[in-house]
Amino acid sequence: MADSTSSAVWNGGLSDGHGAMIIGERTAEVPFSAGSRFEGQAGSNPEELVGAALAGCFSMAPAKNLQDAGARPDRIETRATVSLEKMAGGFAVTRIMLRTEGSVAREMSEDEFKRLAGETKKTCPMAKVLANADIRLEASLV
Amino acid sequence: MADSTSSAVWNGGLSDGHGAMIIGERTAEVPFSAGSRFEGQAGSNPEELVGAALAGCFSMAPAKNLQDAGARPDRIETRATVSLEKMAGGFAVTRIMLRTEGSVAREMSEDEFKRLAGETKKTCPMAKVLANADIRLEASLV
Repeated sequence: MADSTSSAVWNGGLSDGHGAMIIGERTAEVPFSAGSRFEGQAGSNPEELVGAALAGCFSMAPAKNLQDAGARPDRIETRATVSLEKMAGGFAVTRIMLRTEGSVAREMSEDEFKRLAGETKKTCPMAKVLANADIRLEASLV
Repeated sequence: MADSTSSAVWNGGLSDGHGAMIIGERTAEVPFSAGSRFEGQAGSNPEELVGAALAGCFSMAPAKNLQDAGARPDRIETRATVSLEKMAGGFAVTRIMLRTEGSVAREMSEDEFKRLAGETKKTCPMAKVLANADIRLEASLV
């Protein structure tokens, strides 16, 4: 079993306060505020971190799937956009859009790449626990 | 609606390759590898980012809940431990343990703080989409 520990601190109230999310043992410290979360101001927010985590999963896992299929992966890049909307019951993540682009060392059809990248939805530990998220994946070779 | 975009890149195969998760518009770049994800080697992994995101949510949201209850929050700190285990169907997140500690400017019972911190499980957009995660919360005043 692997345990990953991170933390966060918030100082003050919601609108006048500010915080920092600390990844692991200070791998990175990411500042956030109500403004950076809900109003597009400078700084980060939890949604960016979840997007980066999913992007990580959807770049790493296809490398394994490609290897298992006999194709040597060269570079896999994923962009994740997490949409947060104010709903009747409060803010909610309404969609997570993932775009994976891969380059591989052997001839491979676009369809085969899409299929291998798509398997990540079933195997990525992050995708599996995000059961209530509307995760959409577009995958293509570059 | 607020869209948060992050990305990740993976170079090479699974075991011999390496990658980086890029938070937002380069707020932070977090390196990861198979070793840092599954074997406790130096570097980060997607689970650390999800833990940091949840810790962020569970520190920020109680600040609002405390304000709404008439208590001025001073400092709220949350530690998140995400457990990844190899199961029959592959790696899975088996538990997310959160520990929230708060200090507030007025007299407040431990039970009231626990209740206000606990509301975050129902309101945090991250907790809501993580429907398949076994999220456990301990909360206390300090």
